[in-house]
Amino acid sequence: MNDVPTYSHGQKIFAEFIGSLFLLATIVGSGIMAENLSGGSAALALMCNTIAVGAILIVLITMLGPVSGAHLNPAVTLGFRLKGDIGSGLASGFIAAQIAGAILGVWLTHIMFDLSIIQTSNTARTGAHILASEALATFGLMWVIFATLKTKASAVPMAVGLYIIAAYWFTSSTSFANPAVTLARSLSDTFVGIRPIDAPPFIIVQCVGAIIAFYVYKLSMEPKITTLRANVDEA
Amino acid sequence: MNDVPTYSHGQKIFAEFIGSLFLLATIVGSGIMAENLSGGSAALALMCNTIAVGAILIVLITMLGPVSGAHLNPAVTLGFRLKGDIGSGLASGFIAAQIAGAILGVWLTHIMFDLSIIQTSNTARTGAHILASEALATFGLMWVIFATLKTKASAVPMAVGLYIIAAYWFTSSTSFANPAVTLARSLSDTFVGIRPIDAPPFIIVQCVGAIIAFYVYKLSMEPKITTLRANVDEA
Amino acid sequence: MNDVPTYSHGQKIFAEFIGSLFLLATIVGSGIMAENLSGGSAALALMCNTIAVGAILIVLITMLGPVSGAHLNPAVTLGFRLKGDIGSGLASGFIAAQIAGAILGVWLTHIMFDLSIIQTSNTARTGAHILASEALATFGLMWVIFATLKTKASAVPMAVGLYIIAAYWFTSSTSFANPAVTLARSLSDTFVGIRPIDAPPFIIVQCVGAIIAFYVYKLSMEPKITTLRANVDEA
Amino acid sequence: MNDVPTYSHGQKIFAEFIGSLFLLATIVGSGIMAENLSGGSAALALMCNTIAVGAILIVLITMLGPVSGAHLNPAVTLGFRLKGDIGSGLASGFIAAQIAGAILGVWLTHIMFDLSIIQTSNTARTGAHILASEALATFGLMWVIFATLKTKASAVPMAVGLYIIAAYWFTSSTSFANPAVTLARSLSDTFVGIRPIDAPPFIIVQCVGAIIAFYVYKLSMEPKITTLRANVDEA
Repeated sequence: MNDVPTYSHGQKIFAEFIGSLFLLATIVGSGIMAENLSGGSAALALMCNTIAVGAILIVLITMLGPVSGAHLNPAVTLGFRLKGDIGSGLASGFIAAQIAGAILGVWLTHIMFDLSIIQTSNTARTGAHILASEALATFGLMWVIFATLKTKASAVPMAVGLYIIAAYWFTSSTSFANPAVTLARSLSDTFVGIRPIDAPPFIIVQCVGAIIAFYVYKLSMEPKITTLRANVDEA
Repeated sequence: MNDVPTYSHGQKIFAEFIGSLFLLATIVGSGIMAENLSGGSAALALMCNTIAVGAILIVLITMLGPVSGAHLNPAVTLGFRLKGDIGSGLASGFIAAQIAGAILGVWLTHIMFDLSIIQTSNTARTGAHILASEALATFGLMWVIFATLKTKASAVPMAVGLYIIAAYWFTSSTSFANPAVTLARSLSDTFVGIRPIDAPPFIIVQCVGAIIAFYVYKLSMEPKITTLRANVDEA
Repeated sequence: MNDVPTYSHGQKIFAEFIGSLFLLATIVGSGIMAENLSGGSAALALMCNTIAVGAILIVLITMLGPVSGAHLNPAVTLGFRLKGDIGSGLASGFIAAQIAGAILGVWLTHIMFDLSIIQTSNTARTGAHILASEALATFGLMWVIFATLKTKASAVPMAVGLYIIAAYWFTSSTSFANPAVTLARSLSDTFVGIRPIDAPPFIIVQCVGAIIAFYVYKLSMEPKITTLRANVDEA
Repeated sequence: MNDVPTYSHGQKIFAEFIGSLFLLATIVGSGIMAENLSGGSAALALMCNTIAVGAILIVLITMLGPVSGAHLNPAVTLGFRLKGDIGSGLASGFIAAQIAGAILGVWLTHIMFDLSIIQTSNTARTGAHILASEALATFGLMWVIFATLKTKASAVPMAVGLYIIAAYWFTSSTSFANPAVTLARSLSDTFVGIRPIDAPPFIIVQCVGAIIAFYVYKLSMEPKITTLRANVDEA
């Protein structure tokens, strides 16, 4: 429980870096593997991709949560900055580490699959409904994190992993829901890629979704009359 | 543990609303995505749908359970009303919120997938064996909730999610088991739709299944001789 | 924790009955659904069957474990009889309830899928390698139950569910590993059926596997020098 | 919690032996079953293999972790030897038991599937990118084990199982990540085989990955200034 204070800022930033590296390796690598093996069944490829990503998210957030909070996502770091749980300096370090780790994860994956390391994606992902999907997906992600942290903090790793498994399928965008992931996926011309030109709108609506989630959470789950609550808790 | 009393009735009702919204977004959205990508493999499409729905149920009940109980289902609210855990006033609010959230979830999903917002389903779901499936599915759901609440309350979110994963496959109806879900799915002419005319019989047998579950639970799991039990507990 | 003593013998036997009913409904129903929808992909059909069965096992053992132990399997009841955890009278009641519940579960499933209620299977399952599979599968199941009960009792429901998920795939028999399940499946001429004539050898090797597991467990996991252990525990 | 000291060295070594046996039975058996049934869909076959292996890993590490640590992997034993958690004598016993159990598991699986017991694989697995995959996969496995042991020890079984599920897909080698598994798989000319001549490079890079993980873990997760930490913990 009280392990968090034992880690230095450098260790926390490294946790964000290496966690983002493995997250992107899993997203991109499982996408390549799934597409290579699926013989054209897009549903099967996406399910293989989904299961791998959901699994690694649960692992990474379980093991790195007590170190850095395991944001692995600039939109999540933004949400916790709004909530006041992290300062601007450390938040900036987290975001830089998330982006660097994510890009390195993509490049390592290209090495593992014997592909050109430096690529840019040609997969167009545009349209208002796609952006609406990203906004709702990131709203949901941030809302799940805030609400689960409040009501059952030990379940956050599982909640995030399972939420992303669902969101891969209930959105038309397959739920990137993460600016660092979006940037890094623009650097891979594989199953999970996104054209660099399509990334900025994704990132903007993701941040908007996260910000809205913060205010919805505050209104819907924080108690109004704290003095009364204290009495009830005693009952 | 004792967080429940800190939420206002309005916050509880909002939890039922937004939870039902995400539940339906997942049911309908993952159904559309799965059907679009599955190339005609109905088993694959249903499994993708199943995994997404099971995952989001675990997430929603974990995070909202301490707020409102996370019924997300008028049949469940009816069950807890019978059991005496919730008053008629709040139960009515819950059911209204569940239906409103479910319908809004369907409409948002149509937006995410660039479909007409307002639809009605043309998928016929009729037959005594289908209705028997719905009755048994809802009986099982309510029995799982009551029994798990009694024997291992912390496992309810996982038990409900996994039960629904199983029930999607062991019933011939794919286990709607939820009147609000049934109503809302009648408003989507996609993979998971049901003709509006077929919805009322579903809802009736779902409520019957839930009511039977309450009495079976009472007979089979509540102790008969409570004075004797106290002695045994000391042993 | 101490809820077990509060249930009467009748309630325990009913738990075995209804649990076995839902277990067989899931095994047979998900088998029918999976075969109907899979368009001839046997691997996909078996995976859908596997996931449904693994899921319901975790649910049933979680919720009924504190009532009756949730054996749901005469071989497991035999194992606990050998270990001395259950008397012969109650064990007999359990086995009768397991068989009755399993058969009723098959029949209800035939109703749910609009099939003839009374059937017998025509699926041959013979051969020494198939029987070796059943022996090893049941040995493994009983060993997992005994060992997990000793080292992490709260994980037994998950351990059994996940073990069966694995065993469906690592054996050539798809791991029946349960005499009541074997009997009941002989009464369904569907995906999961077994010819009645092939059932008795299955049941015999299942019991042999369970008995061997008991002795391997005793030798490998029970401490030899209990006085020494007490000292070490204090350290 | 303090059950570990109650097991003798012989019991711990037996746990490594029988755990490795079931691990290999699952890897090889589910590979055979998946390939037989998948009708040529390699993605489906690999996913069936993945789910079975992830499931059995969670079971085995949950039940055997309190006995022997449930290494089931010479690279993991090497990691704990470096960390000083196990002596050289017991570590040697573990590695011998892991190899023996793994080979026997392969042979039993050949019996279960009615194949020649003694085989050698003809599946070539070569190339720098494959070896890079194995190094990263084993680095990740060992890093997950060390980090999760430190931050949430009770989650290690789940973390390892889910990590391997992800690693099967994010590496181009399908993540053997285990010298005993590599050796044993060279003795099976089935879906999961590897030519004996390709095994030694796998084993070398696996050990290198595990060793690097130890040092990265030490630098990134062990506190530098322990006196300061103690003060912070009190805050």
